[in-house]
Amino acid sequence: MTLLDSQEGRDLTVQASRLQGQSIAALLSADATRPQAFSCEAAGLHLDFSRHLLDTFTLENLLSLARRADMQARIAALFAGREVNHTEKRPALHMLLRASAADNHAARFAEVVATRERMREHVETLRSQRQTGFTGEPISDVVNLGIGGSDLGPRLTSEALAPACPAPPRVHYAANIDPEDLRSVIAPLNPATTLFIVCSKSFSTEETLHNALAARRWLQDAGASEKDLARHFLAVTSHLQAAEEFGIPPDNCLPLWDWVGGRYSLWSAIGLSTAIAIGWEAFCELLRGAETMDRHFRDTSPESNLPLLMSLLEIWCCHFLGATNHAVLPYAYRLRRLPDFLQQLTMESNGKRVNRSGDTVGYHTAPVLWGAAGTTGQHSFHQLLHQGTHLCPVDFILPLAPADADEDEDGRHGRLVANCLAQSRALTVGRSAAAAEDSLRQRGRDDDAEWLAPHLAIPGNRPHSVLSFERLTPHSLGALLALYEHRTFCSSVIWDINAFDQWGVELGKNIGRQVHEVMLGPAAEDANEPASTLDAATAALIQRWRDANA
Amino acid sequence: MTLLDSQEGRDLTVQASRLQGQSIAALLSADATRPQAFSCEAAGLHLDFSRHLLDTFTLENLLSLARRADMQARIAALFAGREVNHTEKRPALHMLLRASAADNHAARFAEVVATRERMREHVETLRSQRQTGFTGEPISDVVNLGIGGSDLGPRLTSEALAPACPAPPRVHYAANIDPEDLRSVIAPLNPATTLFIVCSKSFSTEETLHNALAARRWLQDAGASEKDLARHFLAVTSHLQAAEEFGIPPDNCLPLWDWVGGRYSLWSAIGLSTAIAIGWEAFCELLRGAETMDRHFRDTSPESNLPLLMSLLEIWCCHFLGATNHAVLPYAYRLRRLPDFLQQLTMESNGKRVNRSGDTVGYHTAPVLWGAAGTTGQHSFHQLLHQGTHLCPVDFILPLAPADADEDEDGRHGRLVANCLAQSRALTVGRSAAAAEDSLRQRGRDDDAEWLAPHLAIPGNRPHSVLSFERLTPHSLGALLALYEHRTFCSSVIWDINAFDQWGVELGKNIGRQVHEVMLGPAAEDANEPASTLDAATAALIQRWRDANA
Repeated sequence: MTLLDSQEGRDLTVQASRLQGQSIAALLSADATRPQAFSCEAAGLHLDFSRHLLDTFTLENLLSLARRADMQARIAALFAGREVNHTEKRPALHMLLRASAADNHAARFAEVVATRERMREHVETLRSQRQTGFTGEPISDVVNLGIGGSDLGPRLTSEALAPACPAPPRVHYAANIDPEDLRSVIAPLNPATTLFIVCSKSFSTEETLHNALAARRWLQDAGASEKDLARHFLAVTSHLQAAEEFGIPPDNCLPLWDWVGGRYSLWSAIGLSTAIAIGWEAFCELLRGAETMDRHFRDTSPESNLPLLMSLLEIWCCHFLGATNHAVLPYAYRLRRLPDFLQQLTMESNGKRVNRSGDTVGYHTAPVLWGAAGTTGQHSFHQLLHQGTHLCPVDFILPLAPADADEDEDGRHGRLVANCLAQSRALTVGRSAAAAEDSLRQRGRDDDAEWLAPHLAIPGNRPHSVLSFERLTPHSLGALLALYEHRTFCSSVIWDINAFDQWGVELGKNIGRQVHEVMLGPAAEDANEPASTLDAATAALIQRWRDANA
Repeated sequence: MTLLDSQEGRDLTVQASRLQGQSIAALLSADATRPQAFSCEAAGLHLDFSRHLLDTFTLENLLSLARRADMQARIAALFAGREVNHTEKRPALHMLLRASAADNHAARFAEVVATRERMREHVETLRSQRQTGFTGEPISDVVNLGIGGSDLGPRLTSEALAPACPAPPRVHYAANIDPEDLRSVIAPLNPATTLFIVCSKSFSTEETLHNALAARRWLQDAGASEKDLARHFLAVTSHLQAAEEFGIPPDNCLPLWDWVGGRYSLWSAIGLSTAIAIGWEAFCELLRGAETMDRHFRDTSPESNLPLLMSLLEIWCCHFLGATNHAVLPYAYRLRRLPDFLQQLTMESNGKRVNRSGDTVGYHTAPVLWGAAGTTGQHSFHQLLHQGTHLCPVDFILPLAPADADEDEDGRHGRLVANCLAQSRALTVGRSAAAAEDSLRQRGRDDDAEWLAPHLAIPGNRPHSVLSFERLTPHSLGALLALYEHRTFCSSVIWDINAFDQWGVELGKNIGRQVHEVMLGPAAEDANEPASTLDAATAALIQRWRDANA
């Protein structure tokens, strides 16, 4: 019997049908203490979940479900370094990357500390403009070459925290194999003062390797010698030999370890570009924010455990209320990449269809995560949130004050906050057809008020959370990202899946090599004849590719 | 009886249950002509929909559904300028914006042509560096201030088509009310050589107006006089008086018309920033591409009508196979904003819950649209596409050759194409547990092959389309965007909803004003006392905002 079929799961199914007819707005009016009762705070982050369709019974039942899943023991096992990634026989110890003490992992922690020290040296050399390129001029621009976890986390954190108009070195990112990506990044740059960081554990990730080769050609075409390359390339990799063959000496390589998954790696040397963009002290604050959340998660009992509560809200909305997607709406322009980062974190971790024993699960796992920064989404997809037919649970992410206290002289940030709270309230209370009709009549539209009103009616009762914090700082961002990491882990425990592997991406890579080989090989005599072992549709598209490039 | 409950709809329900057990891969192997039979081409765009879970019977039934919906008459009514936006008593004539002839709309078309001519003049003056700012230096940077339709379309088209390192004037975009957005755009710019285009039909859109006010202060702080403002501001608006009060004379204002919805407005003067970025000839090519698709859509019979077929695939996947989301994956870095644009187009148009008569629909309307550029998504959420539990239909968007024929000297673009085709094939064929076990044994992993294999298994059979075209040009992009516009319209016809209004966003704006007033008013004596008429949760968050900004 699976956890979700247990007595606790069945109790929750009963709760769900009881609550389906209820109104969140009514629950809120009936109990003035609800916002306090349905909230939780940790590491400076405050979660208001009073606008979810649940009550104290539901919450108790959800906590029982977590107990039944042996959640506290599973959390302990995670921190203890057990092989929670059982299919790859590895622990998942990204928490160690931001720890200030070794706990039980002295050997690993020593490597972390040594690597931090090496990162700090690179950061300080580059930020003080002491590192020079092949003409002797100081490095002015740093380009991070990486994809997935070697891109999304560093890009998010540096965009969120770096100044709008930074002193050199400026930090840039290129990820896509499409040559347009790197081309658009380097077009305005000077090769003599540009440094690349190649982030690839294997040093063989297709996109990263081929972008690195293009970068090397760009430098060489500008006059860099083989020997000069060492001044223009750093790498974060486990594969020193491949890096050296490329032209990056071991001294320029920072390590990665197999107990750090790609999507949990921004805290490692993969974060070097971020540390260059925001400075070493700020990077350490990012780590400390995450560490504060780690300790909260490890040491706090379930009913006040923020990552666990957010996971239980996910399970409640998805498994019991039937949501198939999850929107994350940061009301902060600097956090506009957060949905991209969370897509990898949640969908790569929990987009699985077999449980830890390899049996097909009989329920849905990770929902589709999507979103965009408020207020821009209000002028785009919010129409569907308010009047669409699909249940779309939302996390509003809200820094309450501007990052710099002086930054709101004209009150635009206050308006941003007002918009966030208004969307939350509109999703809760909605507008009845009668209220819509009244409003039309007040506007003097008696003639069409009656027939038009249903088009203006909004059902409300859309479950969502508001996650607010004082301001966006390295510390609050570190805590926020660690919060979502641990929430993702808790949901994997409830769903009984391995959050740390990603076997589903392997097949596409294998077929990619096969397709590429066919593309580069001789054309089939008859264009309608499937090329080698590929299917007819793929073969037909390869022929179209040949024709377009002929 | 609704259309979807008609005989045609019931036939499709039967088809769906018949096909649910079938394999797309088997359908492909059984019929070598399937890729040709299940494909359609228009305006240079080629749709391969052979990897959907359907057969010729399904397709015939879907076309019958369209006939039953009187689709051809509805398309004719759209082009004839009938009030298809019946709740706002307006036609939707965005096709006229890209037309080369007036058809039956002579008066409107004359205004379009006159506006095009004024746009062309602005574009040529700015691109030839003949327009100067308040110090007499030529304008080097243009910042578009707009949100929603006044931002997403122009941003997408200029990013997709402008050179990586353009000659001045360079074009930028700021949309969000968050002051960080405009601040980060203008930080590196020189006020003396920066021009702003204020895009707001009402000249009162909160975000756009407040960003325009901030831009005006920035210019004035740098020494621009009241009179100088006319050299630094253009507007696209219907509200000349408000623009003039702001400091933008009527000569600097380009018009918008009520028969153009915001999300269909990039073809109007709202596209001015795009035209500046890509040049007038290229902008005209964008219009011509869209016009080519318009004519195809208006004049082609259903079975070869590309927008209609794509709509029927949406209806098939969502209504009959139960998909609740739709992924769009452009394999082109330059199209990375396409999902953002399509979110507004599809979710604002069709995120509706009442039919044209105002009755609640008994079925789902628009799905959640999401996506990201390939190959970056492969290192993020593709895990869920391959092994997750939710049905996620995909549109792959694939330019077959690089935009500039010389641009693929190192074959990275070929690798991009190979990756796209490989993802399509992997989603189709999947990998059985037995095949996974074999592969593990071949890698010498006999010990764990058996228990590990289920984790590597991939079900395949995921429906998707491949929309390919020779290369990304103004013409192909124009056709692509018009294709999705008309697809959205066709789906609205099947769902019997109005695709052209957006009443659902009004409530949030109203509540926003109310919340903002409370925020600026005196604090409640007792922080736990709901402020004025707001609920306790909103009041508590307003108190948190006060505390954070104290």
